[in-house]
Amino acid sequence: MEPIRVAILGFGTVGKGVYAHIKEEQQSLEQTLNRPVQVTAVLVNDESKHRDVANHVLLTTNMDDVLAQQIDIVVEAITGVESAYQYVTAAIEQGCHVVTANKAMYAARGQKLQELAEERRINVKYDASVAGGIPIIDTLNQIHQLESVHRIEAILNGTSNYILTAVAKEGLTFHEALTQATRLGYAEADPSHDIDGFDALNKAYILANLLRKDYQEITVNRRKGLDQLQLDEVLNKQTNQVLKPLVTIDATSESAIEIVVEPTWVEENHPLSSVDGVQNAIVISSDRLGSLKLEGAGAGEKPTAHAIVQDIVKTVKEDNRILV
Amino acid sequence: MEPIRVAILGFGTVGKGVYAHIKEEQQSLEQTLNRPVQVTAVLVNDESKHRDVANHVLLTTNMDDVLAQQIDIVVEAITGVESAYQYVTAAIEQGCHVVTANKAMYAARGQKLQELAEERRINVKYDASVAGGIPIIDTLNQIHQLESVHRIEAILNGTSNYILTAVAKEGLTFHEALTQATRLGYAEADPSHDIDGFDALNKAYILANLLRKDYQEITVNRRKGLDQLQLDEVLNKQTNQVLKPLVTIDATSESAIEIVVEPTWVEENHPLSSVDGVQNAIVISSDRLGSLKLEGAGAGEKPTAHAIVQDIVKTVKEDNRILV
Ligand SMILES: NC(=O)c1ccc[n+]([C@@H]2O[C@H](COP(=O)([O-])OP(=O)(O)OC[C@H]3O[C@@H](n4cnc5c(N)ncnc54)[C@H](OP(=O)(O)O)[C@@H]3O)[C@@H](O)[C@H]2O)c1
Ligand SMILES: NC(=O)c1ccc[n+]([C@@H]2O[C@H](COP(=O)([O-])OP(=O)(O)OC[C@H]3O[C@@H](n4cnc5c(N)ncnc54)[C@H](OP(=O)(O)O)[C@@H]3O)[C@@H](O)[C@H]2O)c1
Repeated sequence: MEPIRVAILGFGTVGKGVYAHIKEEQQSLEQTLNRPVQVTAVLVNDESKHRDVANHVLLTTNMDDVLAQQIDIVVEAITGVESAYQYVTAAIEQGCHVVTANKAMYAARGQKLQELAEERRINVKYDASVAGGIPIIDTLNQIHQLESVHRIEAILNGTSNYILTAVAKEGLTFHEALTQATRLGYAEADPSHDIDGFDALNKAYILANLLRKDYQEITVNRRKGLDQLQLDEVLNKQTNQVLKPLVTIDATSESAIEIVVEPTWVEENHPLSSVDGVQNAIVISSDRLGSLKLEGAGAGEKPTAHAIVQDIVKTVKEDNRILV
Repeated sequence: MEPIRVAILGFGTVGKGVYAHIKEEQQSLEQTLNRPVQVTAVLVNDESKHRDVANHVLLTTNMDDVLAQQIDIVVEAITGVESAYQYVTAAIEQGCHVVTANKAMYAARGQKLQELAEERRINVKYDASVAGGIPIIDTLNQIHQLESVHRIEAILNGTSNYILTAVAKEGLTFHEALTQATRLGYAEADPSHDIDGFDALNKAYILANLLRKDYQEITVNRRKGLDQLQLDEVLNKQTNQVLKPLVTIDATSESAIEIVVEPTWVEENHPLSSVDGVQNAIVISSDRLGSLKLEGAGAGEKPTAHAIVQDIVKTVKEDNRILV
């Protein structure tokens, strides 16, 4: 059987995780898909760093060389918007399916990519971009297909949640908590977008866009990060309340889907009050289902790699050309 | 476009809910599937009861008449094992896909049905049979495809959870709580299997079977219902513990998957301690994902109907003959 040829763009936390997952689960993947999955090329930024990849894998800084490898599926796990967008566009134009973990890129350009992909009957999947190991995209898509989702409440940034939990439960200062989050590998190397709310906003935008009807806008009513919290706000604890880095998506207005990103005091019986540390969670409210909550690992090498490999499996199953 | 022809077996809480859902969402279903969905026949037990169905729908007590209607998909929402199994078998043999909500039947005969269905390239879907509105079957299947799930902890019987919550938080007696659950429509007309643990056990069995490898057995290490609780056990509250109707599925042994159904005291920081009232929840533990929790409505007309219609949509999408 011809292998399914996968390229991985980026070989940081996520890229390495995907590489390891595919290697470790070689057999079970082949059993599931009736064809082996092979990582054929890895794209990086800095050629001089040591990379622990097998000899047959092309390691390059040149996307043209990657695409010359007859790739079936491109996994995009780099940082930043522009290069990522260009690489992914080139991949789609060449008929490759795409699986991305890059929320900044997908929030900014996801719609364009989906349009381009639809023309070419290509899949662009992005489950790993929101709440890492929680299968939120497919779940939300399926519910939304059957009935209106009117509200989402979520904790989508693990670093912020870790910090607020450590401040509240361990009595750390904000800076001690951030340092600890960085040391434990929860915060990004540059955690500024964890802290200023833009990471959560990007994820909220991706979810809102999934719910959006053609004529609706997405409006951001407020984006407040931990960095804008005043000390007295944090200390202003009410009994039975906890401060959570909340994302709210309100889809009840006909003209717009409204996003609020803001640390918020919630009652102890609020469904997100017990979500602590680096955990993420999402509560989806709709008429028939009532409220459905998903809670799990929002980031990290293994959960994120799992989500990406899940998207690879789905891509293969949905493409009869690949599946043969 | 030719409609997709659906038969509904049983017109109780679930059957009626499915009928209403399909009627109310006619337009959006047609948009999703590119073909209208039409309820063509309804099978009941007692012909004399009044049924609120449209004139063009065949209402009958005879399964042969149902199958004479060129049905594409049979929704099975009756009670009991034997008749349900016979109807579903006849449907599969005639080439109909099946969607069932009947956990007693599916726990007892699911494997046989899947074998029969595989021979005929038919889908038998059963998401509604476990935890109503929580999309547990697909989620678990997908995780399990990629890596070993070693443990599941869950609350799968809403009535038991409702009763234990009411006893603990409202100070009701067991019997007052059960009466209230019945009055509110949470308990089944005959709630004996809610109370003796068999309802939860059937659902546990369905989940365990999904994780089972060919050579593994499923063993039930303990099934204890609320009816076997001694008063002193209920009153024996430890500080920071709550009594929950717990289901545990342990898949770490190579020879067997082990099920325990038992009211259990859990610590307040246990992921299921905050799941109150009629809510259901499932915690799936695996190496890479860590733990993923799903929480939502475990039963009721609308959530269960949503789950069934979801399975109808998936069935259509997976069948290229139907989809055209
Ligand atoms: N970490 C998580 O838990 C997580 C979870 C979900 C989603 N994500 C998203 O996944 C993406 C990757 O995250 P990460 O944590 O793996 O980041 P990372 O550890 O910083 O790694 C980024 C990788 O991308 C490469 N890269 C950056 N710009 C590039 C360019 N222009 N061309 C080629 N390669 C380039 C880097 O190359 P060098 O190695 O040569 O520097 C590096 O290997 C990000 O978009 C992130 O937001 C991360
Ligand atoms: N209720 C829930 O929230 C829920 C959730 C998930 C799964 N389920 C499962 O879904 C199934 C249906 O539950 P339900 O609550 O809708 O039950 P229900 O309200 O008691 O309704 C049962 C229906 O099945 C019909 N029926 C029973 N035996 C039959 C037979 N031999 N032939 C033809 N029709 C027969 C009855 O006919 P008559 O009307 O003529 O008596 C009735 O319409 C059960 O297996 C249940 O465990 C229920």
